[in-house]
Amino acid sequence: MQLHELETPCLILDRRRLEKNLATMRQQAQRLGVRLRPHGKTAKNIDIVRMALGSRPEGITVSTLKEARYYFENGITDILYAVGIAPVKLKRAAALIKDGADLTLILDTPEQARCVAAAGRSEGVAFPVLIEIDCDNHRAGVTPEDPLLLAIGRLLGAEPGAALRGVMTHAGASYGSRSAEEIRSFARRERDAVVRCAERLRAAGLPCPVVSVGSTPTARFADDLSGVTEARPGVYMSHDLVMAGLGVCGTDDIALSVLASVIGRQTKKGWLIVDAGWTALSRDRGTAAQALDQGYGLVCGIDGRSVGDLIVADTNQEHGIIAHRQGAPPDFDAFPIGSAVRILPNHACATAAMHDRYFVVDGDTAVAAVWPRINGW
Amino acid sequence: MQLHELETPCLILDRRRLEKNLATMRQQAQRLGVRLRPHGKTAKNIDIVRMALGSRPEGITVSTLKEARYYFENGITDILYAVGIAPVKLKRAAALIKDGADLTLILDTPEQARCVAAAGRSEGVAFPVLIEIDCDNHRAGVTPEDPLLLAIGRLLGAEPGAALRGVMTHAGASYGSRSAEEIRSFARRERDAVVRCAERLRAAGLPCPVVSVGSTPTARFADDLSGVTEARPGVYMSHDLVMAGLGVCGTDDIALSVLASVIGRQTKKGWLIVDAGWTALSRDRGTAAQALDQGYGLVCGIDGRSVGDLIVADTNQEHGIIAHRQGAPPDFDAFPIGSAVRILPNHACATAAMHDRYFVVDGDTAVAAVWPRINGW
Repeated sequence: MQLHELETPCLILDRRRLEKNLATMRQQAQRLGVRLRPHGKTAKNIDIVRMALGSRPEGITVSTLKEARYYFENGITDILYAVGIAPVKLKRAAALIKDGADLTLILDTPEQARCVAAAGRSEGVAFPVLIEIDCDNHRAGVTPEDPLLLAIGRLLGAEPGAALRGVMTHAGASYGSRSAEEIRSFARRERDAVVRCAERLRAAGLPCPVVSVGSTPTARFADDLSGVTEARPGVYMSHDLVMAGLGVCGTDDIALSVLASVIGRQTKKGWLIVDAGWTALSRDRGTAAQALDQGYGLVCGIDGRSVGDLIVADTNQEHGIIAHRQGAPPDFDAFPIGSAVRILPNHACATAAMHDRYFVVDGDTAVAAVWPRINGW
Repeated sequence: MQLHELETPCLILDRRRLEKNLATMRQQAQRLGVRLRPHGKTAKNIDIVRMALGSRPEGITVSTLKEARYYFENGITDILYAVGIAPVKLKRAAALIKDGADLTLILDTPEQARCVAAAGRSEGVAFPVLIEIDCDNHRAGVTPEDPLLLAIGRLLGAEPGAALRGVMTHAGASYGSRSAEEIRSFARRERDAVVRCAERLRAAGLPCPVVSVGSTPTARFADDLSGVTEARPGVYMSHDLVMAGLGVCGTDDIALSVLASVIGRQTKKGWLIVDAGWTALSRDRGTAAQALDQGYGLVCGIDGRSVGDLIVADTNQEHGIIAHRQGAPPDFDAFPIGSAVRILPNHACATAAMHDRYFVVDGDTAVAAVWPRINGW
């Protein structure tokens, strides 16, 4: 089957670009001397994650327990669930461990530590736990010098239902960087924060075998991860326009696109209308604050190559409005009614989250496979 | 089962509020003397749409052929697919008609009219078609005085594979209104545009039994729909913060919310962290341009009542950051780790699109039913 035969909108994954991105990050992790624990939250698919792991039997990161269950049932046992644990989810987490998963939780409050320990005791498991560290004032975590770090560490160490395994951080603020040097400084902040916390825990006699950092930009530009044991990038697998805007990849590296059909033209307004709205592209406007605003996505031909400065300027539920970045009219003759375009996403995680499957191509327009995605919780 | 026992995040539908909203719109349609053809794109669920239709065996509107198939297999035959038809979808549309659906398509180009007629001929069906009219310069459609209107009408009239059934418009620009009077003027523009087009088609000897308008704001504030035969509001079923900001409903009318657990607190930043990120709330920022910016949603207690000025100030994939609108610290003691909140959505269609089911309550916190949602295409 060829792309032009597919019903639109749908999600296209270019396996050739994917493979290149995966190899680049594996080499980078090797160069930095850290284990790569890829984040499965962008891919939400076992075929992609298996390729990311390559031949190594190493672990992964997930963003939901549904992903954890799915990857576990597909043969991956070492799984870090990298969202602060909600007490209501502990029963399900315990079930995974009882079934044989080596599932690690994260948390950043004494209350969570007590809940986890209590649930572990009543479920008969010892939940491995990383303490979440705030390295960039961006979201969650305890700051490196906070007395809570040791308080939480001691709570976890004192209870049979939990086992302190280390520390983790995520420099989400690195996504707002304006240069490679700025991203590199975020990578240092990630490293310095968790290495300092590991030192504090160890000095207090507490174990800290895992020292985990992670984001695609920092993993790409880090120059020295001494003291860090693992990195957890995720979006590098497919990349996206936000990563391209950060200089982490080129637009030609982006492996994900949404196939759409032209369903109208508004010649006076200079618009093409396509059948990919926000249900297909998401409402993510991650490039809005970057130097080059890509609207809701950059328009390519059905071959996946950019056609210049056409972007999706606006979206409704099932409509996308394509316009020229500078307001020039599109070449309407090049996009007749019924013709197909491919739209590169701002944010791969968000766009992919709107789809339940990938149509896989190998650098051309022939559909080589269809792979499922595990959305939801 | 009670709400506090549900795993978070998940989507909650308050049936009591829903019923009130449905009754209000039915009365409004009756008062205006138009048939109500509710849009099933927000609900994506047969239970809700059946309630919206009440006892009348009337038709509905849909935004995807997947919805059309789903509603048809649940007993609704009269279905308007209100997105400009893509040629690649005609085979599937024909299959619905051959199975017994009275499925109407829309289009706004001669190319589509030719494709539809040709596909109808080869599939052995006559596709009923409405011509889409642009009443507000907002998205798609031919303008009321455009010569294309009659050209398309004649193409549809001349072919056995298609049958002109009328005209339709949607004043999407009404969502940007600043007053009830402005919305009322959009309702007049909707009416005037389609009534004028119906006159032109009839004067040319072409049939135009259906004269269709639709949006929740215009349906709510219209004062006179003379010449219009039907209205197609959708989001009125649950309402949302955008509708509340427009004065179309109150926040106490919003029937949809996302249940989330508190998983962290950042006392220095004045933040609560919950496990509802953009995968649960969507990236929609529909209130950003309104007088009251609700962030990614307004925070309520587990009973569904607003707790003041707490909003979701930012979202990541699985994290929501709750902060006070004016920067005051939240009452952290009122929201301990593990406690649940309900978050009212900016845009019900977008938030609901992130979920595959509704947990239904009747004004309280007891789960009375679980209803599926039909996302995707």
